Amino acid sequence: MDQTAFQVKRVREPELHTTHRFAGRDGQGPSIRYVREDERVLYDALVGGDPSISFERSGPRERIAFAPEQSTAAILTSGGLCPGLNAVISSVFMSLYHHYGVKRILGIPNGYAGLMQPYSRNIKPLIRDEMKKIARTGGSVLGSARLKPDVRAIVDTIQAYGIDMLFCIGGDGTQRGAHAIHEELSRRGLPVSVVGVPKTIDNDIGFVQKTFGFDTAVEIARQAIAAANTEAECAINGIGLVRLMGRDSGFITACASIASADVNYCLVPEVHFTLDGEHGLLAVLERRLATRHHAVIAVAEGAGQDLIDSGTVRYDKTGNKLASDIGRYLRDRINAHFKENHHEVNLKYSDPSYIIRAAPANASDQILCTALGHGAVHAAMAGRTDMIVGSWNGQFTHVPIPLAVQGRKLIEPEGDLWRTVLETTGQPPLVPPQEALA
Amino acid sequence: MDQTAFQVKRVREPELHTTHRFAGRDGQGPSIRYVREDERVLYDALVGGDPSISFERSGPRERIAFAPEQSTAAILTSGGLCPGLNAVISSVFMSLYHHYGVKRILGIPNGYAGLMQPYSRNIKPLIRDEMKKIARTGGSVLGSARLKPDVRAIVDTIQAYGIDMLFCIGGDGTQRGAHAIHEELSRRGLPVSVVGVPKTIDNDIGFVQKTFGFDTAVEIARQAIAAANTEAECAINGIGLVRLMGRDSGFITACASIASADVNYCLVPEVHFTLDGEHGLLAVLERRLATRHHAVIAVAEGAGQDLIDSGTVRYDKTGNKLASDIGRYLRDRINAHFKENHHEVNLKYSDPSYIIRAAPANASDQILCTALGHGAVHAAMAGRTDMIVGSWNGQFTHVPIPLAVQGRKLIEPEGDLWRTVLETTGQPPLVPPQEALA
Amino acid sequence: MDQTAFQVKRVREPELHTTHRFAGRDGQGPSIRYVREDERVLYDALVGGDPSISFERSGPRERIAFAPEQSTAAILTSGGLCPGLNAVISSVFMSLYHHYGVKRILGIPNGYAGLMQPYSRNIKPLIRDEMKKIARTGGSVLGSARLKPDVRAIVDTIQAYGIDMLFCIGGDGTQRGAHAIHEELSRRGLPVSVVGVPKTIDNDIGFVQKTFGFDTAVEIARQAIAAANTEAECAINGIGLVRLMGRDSGFITACASIASADVNYCLVPEVHFTLDGEHGLLAVLERRLATRHHAVIAVAEGAGQDLIDSGTVRYDKTGNKLASDIGRYLRDRINAHFKENHHEVNLKYSDPSYIIRAAPANASDQILCTALGHGAVHAAMAGRTDMIVGSWNGQFTHVPIPLAVQGRKLIEPEGDLWRTVLETTGQPPLVPPQEALA
Amino acid sequence: MDQTAFQVKRVREPELHTTHRFAGRDGQGPSIRYVREDERVLYDALVGGDPSISFERSGPRERIAFAPEQSTAAILTSGGLCPGLNAVISSVFMSLYHHYGVKRILGIPNGYAGLMQPYSRNIKPLIRDEMKKIARTGGSVLGSARLKPDVRAIVDTIQAYGIDMLFCIGGDGTQRGAHAIHEELSRRGLPVSVVGVPKTIDNDIGFVQKTFGFDTAVEIARQAIAAANTEAECAINGIGLVRLMGRDSGFITACASIASADVNYCLVPEVHFTLDGEHGLLAVLERRLATRHHAVIAVAEGAGQDLIDSGTVRYDKTGNKLASDIGRYLRDRINAHFKENHHEVNLKYSDPSYIIRAAPANASDQILCTALGHGAVHAAMAGRTDMIVGSWNGQFTHVPIPLAVQGRKLIEPEGDLWRTVLETTGQPPLVPPQEALA
Repeated sequence: MDQTAFQVKRVREPELHTTHRFAGRDGQGPSIRYVREDERVLYDALVGGDPSISFERSGPRERIAFAPEQSTAAILTSGGLCPGLNAVISSVFMSLYHHYGVKRILGIPNGYAGLMQPYSRNIKPLIRDEMKKIARTGGSVLGSARLKPDVRAIVDTIQAYGIDMLFCIGGDGTQRGAHAIHEELSRRGLPVSVVGVPKTIDNDIGFVQKTFGFDTAVEIARQAIAAANTEAECAINGIGLVRLMGRDSGFITACASIASADVNYCLVPEVHFTLDGEHGLLAVLERRLATRHHAVIAVAEGAGQDLIDSGTVRYDKTGNKLASDIGRYLRDRINAHFKENHHEVNLKYSDPSYIIRAAPANASDQILCTALGHGAVHAAMAGRTDMIVGSWNGQFTHVPIPLAVQGRKLIEPEGDLWRTVLETTGQPPLVPPQEALA
Repeated sequence: MDQTAFQVKRVREPELHTTHRFAGRDGQGPSIRYVREDERVLYDALVGGDPSISFERSGPRERIAFAPEQSTAAILTSGGLCPGLNAVISSVFMSLYHHYGVKRILGIPNGYAGLMQPYSRNIKPLIRDEMKKIARTGGSVLGSARLKPDVRAIVDTIQAYGIDMLFCIGGDGTQRGAHAIHEELSRRGLPVSVVGVPKTIDNDIGFVQKTFGFDTAVEIARQAIAAANTEAECAINGIGLVRLMGRDSGFITACASIASADVNYCLVPEVHFTLDGEHGLLAVLERRLATRHHAVIAVAEGAGQDLIDSGTVRYDKTGNKLASDIGRYLRDRINAHFKENHHEVNLKYSDPSYIIRAAPANASDQILCTALGHGAVHAAMAGRTDMIVGSWNGQFTHVPIPLAVQGRKLIEPEGDLWRTVLETTGQPPLVPPQEALA
Repeated sequence: MDQTAFQVKRVREPELHTTHRFAGRDGQGPSIRYVREDERVLYDALVGGDPSISFERSGPRERIAFAPEQSTAAILTSGGLCPGLNAVISSVFMSLYHHYGVKRILGIPNGYAGLMQPYSRNIKPLIRDEMKKIARTGGSVLGSARLKPDVRAIVDTIQAYGIDMLFCIGGDGTQRGAHAIHEELSRRGLPVSVVGVPKTIDNDIGFVQKTFGFDTAVEIARQAIAAANTEAECAINGIGLVRLMGRDSGFITACASIASADVNYCLVPEVHFTLDGEHGLLAVLERRLATRHHAVIAVAEGAGQDLIDSGTVRYDKTGNKLASDIGRYLRDRINAHFKENHHEVNLKYSDPSYIIRAAPANASDQILCTALGHGAVHAAMAGRTDMIVGSWNGQFTHVPIPLAVQGRKLIEPEGDLWRTVLETTGQPPLVPPQEALA
Repeated sequence: MDQTAFQVKRVREPELHTTHRFAGRDGQGPSIRYVREDERVLYDALVGGDPSISFERSGPRERIAFAPEQSTAAILTSGGLCPGLNAVISSVFMSLYHHYGVKRILGIPNGYAGLMQPYSRNIKPLIRDEMKKIARTGGSVLGSARLKPDVRAIVDTIQAYGIDMLFCIGGDGTQRGAHAIHEELSRRGLPVSVVGVPKTIDNDIGFVQKTFGFDTAVEIARQAIAAANTEAECAINGIGLVRLMGRDSGFITACASIASADVNYCLVPEVHFTLDGEHGLLAVLERRLATRHHAVIAVAEGAGQDLIDSGTVRYDKTGNKLASDIGRYLRDRINAHFKENHHEVNLKYSDPSYIIRAAPANASDQILCTALGHGAVHAAMAGRTDMIVGSWNGQFTHVPIPLAVQGRKLIEPEGDLWRTVLETTGQPPLVPPQEALA
């Protein structure tokens, strides 16, 4: 890795004295310390790691780049719902409004669509009392949408509204859009700060240890697993099969499997498994049912894609590859297998995805959303751009968007998390031995 | 700080090949890597920190010190209840039983009392099916107690039962006891591994970034705050006053205040505040009620102890200093203040402590409990002793007990957490200006 | 009983054709049937009961008394918080606004205070979009208060605002106030409909089988009891003591005891118990601890008042007698008893009242609130006054206020509910045998 | 209706003095009154109803038919899961064991399968401590199954085990089985009491006002609707479509629609609706989206079956007609409709059925389960057979099985419940006007 990829861009040098109320010894508040411009967080916290790779640390600076009373900020949310969106919106608003004194803060409706015709006519100033009320609700008051952003039209709108700071809350598609907007802004010489708050319920954005909404998602996922386990235990040869979110990364499925303590087979995109053969899931399941009479399977939507011979690859509107439906595929294959063998099984299939996405943030996500929102404002006020606020080794950080989107974060099949999954489920490799040793 | 304080003791050298099922390429499981004996986690993950101070990393080793089939393990929980105790017990049991193959695992009833007369007659082998069922329940199936351990009597019992590994789940009092037991064992030349899992709902144990139960505690605390806010908003000059746990450290109160977004004044032991005078809480509250007509106060039980002129200091059975009741004191002072000034206020006081302590672990605590339990077993099997399992900079670690108990972890008044509290509540310093600047 | 007491007053005869959208075959909606003016619900549904005693049935009438587009309605909430207040407010509003077409609907702040100086200046029209949002929230957007209403001043305000229908959501104190307002209105010859929705979290209003908020209260109360049980089970001779609401009637305590299945002693105002002597609670508790080692006690705030020798009787602002604190009294007596006898007990005392009151309504309460709100509007539109909407034998009813407030509903010590409590707890009489047989 | 259909059969006359601990003045307990054998509950509680139709009242009798210490009882659960099964099992057990003194109580595994080969070898005595622990858990510890009972084989097993009282917890299929078993027992002259506790999450069993599990189902269903509403509000022309349980009766869907206050269109089997044409759902939905931009639809699984041209009728193992999938049908038709018209809509479809079925009972269901379990035992001990325990007009009742299963309980399209649905959703008739008026 190269430290230059970790350098955060500045749209404008921070030359004004900060107006942040809760840092510094200005006689109006308690004395919280500023983050110095050279404070950095090590990428690798293990002894022996490369000390030259590090992230810029997040937090309020002594010097800011925008004069609050003359600045306009705008906030948008984009992509699928995720617990905590409103908490982040509220936190960004409150920090701009109360901590720095920015009074003109616009709400962009329906993601990037709201910066384009015809939706841009719905751009409206956000109201303080409304922003207070939404902090703990599910969904996004700004609405969301998935579409390919028209960068030129968007920058036209940014110019038309005189926006100085744009906060983009969304996934890697959204952040790629934010980067493209930043580039178009640079091309036009417009000093607009574009700061992202990474939103991925799958927790799969690169160089960010934990994203908001993930904890809440795991909490609700384990409730669905508990229901599946109850159904499985109460039926003759009951099988509970729960499909969870996770197109590329199985973090929700892995963590919910550990948290539930009921899962027998946890299937994620990062770890290959087979259905057929002596070591495949079907045979393993059959042997388990013979002795334990029930089983619970949690499967991430992106797991086992190689098993499904679909021929065609489908994409959603923003170009994300759509996963073939492994949940229904497994359901049908398991049912067919036992029918062939004249064994009665009672398989119950469930997919709690929409209930998970729309939930309000739990307490720890709420805290994370609050801190990320404040961090995004601190960064924008200090003139940063083309970056997202992340967390790493216990600190909040600034991550350049090109670095964050260069690849998804994946479960390491040899790492601690997957080992804890195996220790909790007790599941075998589900592949032939030679492959397990490979 | 001195690196020698970070060195973990070994009761016996790990010379046997591991029997851990889920690590290593033994053909029976997938290939998860062992933690090498020299892997360490930096104490300071900021650039410029001292790279010579580091923790031993937790995890399964290639060599273990005890032959599982000939070993006896024992588990106890001590001190007040905390969400996740049963999850840790279950996790320690499962790891010993399933991952390593230790079959003789004893449950010690009621903490250290259970290793002394007359309770020791209730020591019983733990049953696998029972251990499976408890994983997600509140409380502790082993029961708990607070008392001063009689170290000699305890070690007599350890000898009598042939215990090789003792797992002590408890707070700093419990860990001090574990250390004393370790010393007595050493004195007698007994190769018994004493490994602790730190339990402090207050999250205040040193050199451990996050303890189990804390997340759950904050979740429930914010529900109590939400109720207090509703009561305050619906009454004429309503004041909601919620007392939360935290004798020395205000982490629960601080985090619940951020998570609720409703708290106006967050009071913790680490940050001094006054009641009287122009900048004291009473005057500040009066000014707030004049314009906003309601207020919510969250106070940690150990906050503002200097304000209470009690004259006598009280201790609980294990020698912990008991906090004078700041909750009722504040309630009475606020009511008296407004009565004197002939202002109607409606103060509602609540203390949700017992509901919090007895709750089952939420999903993220369950994951933490699972990992800590496994980590404790890995450590004991590898011959470690006189240590607890902790977490630091995103890794699980081994922390010598003398290091962990040398002082409590406190909120840094100049740090990120307290700044986020101030940013969220918007509260003023509550002390005269000269003191705020000191 | 006398049927005349069951007759509902009319402030004006219903002579206009209804504007209710969802009843009748008017071509605009489906054909739901009107309630005929002579439909009545039997007071006693047992065979052999007096068929001459019956309630007027609630529901939309074919003829109404007020022309919606020329009418003004007003809503207030009074007394302590209760789950479902906002649901009732929202339901009354929606029925007036959407079902009948009343567009001028006022919100009265802080109960009867809001109809008096200086609070009456805060009377404001309610907004449809706001009313939609509050339906499922806790507390009351109108605020509440406890005070003695100044009936003349209130009727002056009613006249000044031209209010035609006044909806009073509150307990028996509130309904007594509503009756007094009705009488003053009659005296002045003002045709104003005064309709109440009974609010008593204790479920103790007469001639109403179930009041809103009660189900939710029991749900949360049993969570508190579950926590107390966990604390009790995990301590040496642990005793969980939970104080619940119920000044005159122990319905919450009785139902929560059945629902929790953990309570060993359920103490309510309606059933006498003793502390001392061989059959008193202290001796019974001692015998239980000797064999079972833990116990859970649920006590209603109004239970055992005769045991507390307080000398003075205290009242709250509205003249309700305040209960002496039986919870703390029991705690102290139990602790003292076992200390005297040198037995270690660990008693944990909790009082979840404020968390219960501020909770949002659960689903069944939400349905009840919705129906009661609609029923109150149907009654007022049909010209009824001086009445509350109740439920009886599976139907919604009209109950004259003087009937409803003539005495509190109590648990029958010989009835089904108390028998189910005894069957669930297994508790003995807690009085000397001769008294139990009396 | 004919009163003879309401007469409950007795397998044996109650001639022994009761051993019930909590009724009667026997000096061992408080004096709760017995239910006299002639106490009855009116079928119609409205004035003018037929007073000659009534139910036998449930409760403990002064005379019982079985000598507890010489009797054997057995409990089974059959059909799909429902919240509260374990609560009923526990309640039946506790009442037999503690209240009457029956000590031989068998658990029948997997419904009627457990009374047949090969499952009958798994019949086991139930253990008191286990029964205590399950009271508040989801699922059924006895397991369940759907199959056609082999009545002769079952009665052979009943004879072989010497079962005197058989408690059958299940839906109308189960109760039909219980009736057939009763008839075979009569044929053989065996004095075995067969008493059912009706289990139908759909609340659709005849002559029973409310069945256990229903309240809990509505609670969780409204959470799913709330999520669907959030998804709908946050998308461009978002449509939330939630499929709920209810093959013949739409009670869950109707009640959840009222309880959520978010549903715009509630579709149930009892009320006809159309998709096409000016007044059909598609056109109505289009008009709503044009002004309000989002919509929420709740549909019962048995609604709109006439719309689906499937040609074949499918049945499950117990002969229940399987509903064609109206949820997916609506999803596809709505998507196709708007695609044709080139309108963007974002429809999110969810089906929370399995999460609902496996949930533990909420507090009010727990109370209901407790009372029903006790009532079933009182009935069996008093020698009743071929009956279920129900609730009617605020009392618990005995309902002969042939009466209960003669037809399903349905929503009355002209009744209070459906009117409240219409008042809450504001939905139009969704059929051409002439049909609405029919």
